[in-house]
Amino acid sequence: MIKLSDPYDENNIFAKILRGELPSLKLYEDEQTLAFMDIMPQVDGHVLVIPKTPATHLLTLPDEAAGPLLITTRKVADAVRKAMGAEGVMIAQLSGSDAGQTVPHIHMHILPRQSGIDLAFHARDIANMDELALIADKIKAEL
Amino acid sequence: MIKLSDPYDENNIFAKILRGELPSLKLYEDEQTLAFMDIMPQVDGHVLVIPKTPATHLLTLPDEAAGPLLITTRKVADAVRKAMGAEGVMIAQLSGSDAGQTVPHIHMHILPRQSGIDLAFHARDIANMDELALIADKIKAEL
Repeated sequence: MIKLSDPYDENNIFAKILRGELPSLKLYEDEQTLAFMDIMPQVDGHVLVIPKTPATHLLTLPDEAAGPLLITTRKVADAVRKAMGAEGVMIAQLSGSDAGQTVPHIHMHILPRQSGIDLAFHARDIANMDELALIADKIKAEL
Repeated sequence: MIKLSDPYDENNIFAKILRGELPSLKLYEDEQTLAFMDIMPQVDGHVLVIPKTPATHLLTLPDEAAGPLLITTRKVADAVRKAMGAEGVMIAQLSGSDAGQTVPHIHMHILPRQSGIDLAFHARDIANMDELALIADKIKAEL
């Protein structure tokens, strides 16, 4: 349960990914942000972008982290839609369990969208890792 | 039909709102951004935030507009969730018709979320303007 009033939890899984204590399929990294594959994708090409700044959700994101987060999201979203041949892209940011947030480190969802292709439920089924790695390679080729 | 390759249309309704040629229920405005009530709300407290920079969607948003857009979104989202008594907040950015975009000027949707309250369909039914004005007043009181 993630409440908007929760303090930052240094042991959340994205903090562990940032510290290299957990693996991830990384797509892009710079001084302030990291983009990697969502392992419970709602659609092929579902990517997450996080700031390296510790912030539980949008409402506690510091000013100086805002620009870099949205710029990396834009950059990676462009690669995702090219890699997946999508005509649209949806960005979603869920703050608090009531909004569907499941990991207490702010993350931007990038979801390539094509008419006729539905989204699966959020954070439900783990992807096949080999298939996910192939999609990651396609996106990296566009970055 | 909004394609990701579309050039910016100076006559879209949000450009007209920015030029004062169309009315809106404004919540917040600064040099770079404007926040106003969505007149086809998916939930009570559905607010839009736009940059004053002409950009059709996220993929054409200039770097310098990114930080101000996300900072205003955070600021207004905090007021929205307080005003609506919501425990969560969802931010959505839809780029291209295939993602559900209906107005060709980039906008961030702020959707207050509470467990058990569903979202209505996107951009379908026009709100009662008196009720919308009352909600706008509640949000402005938190800004």
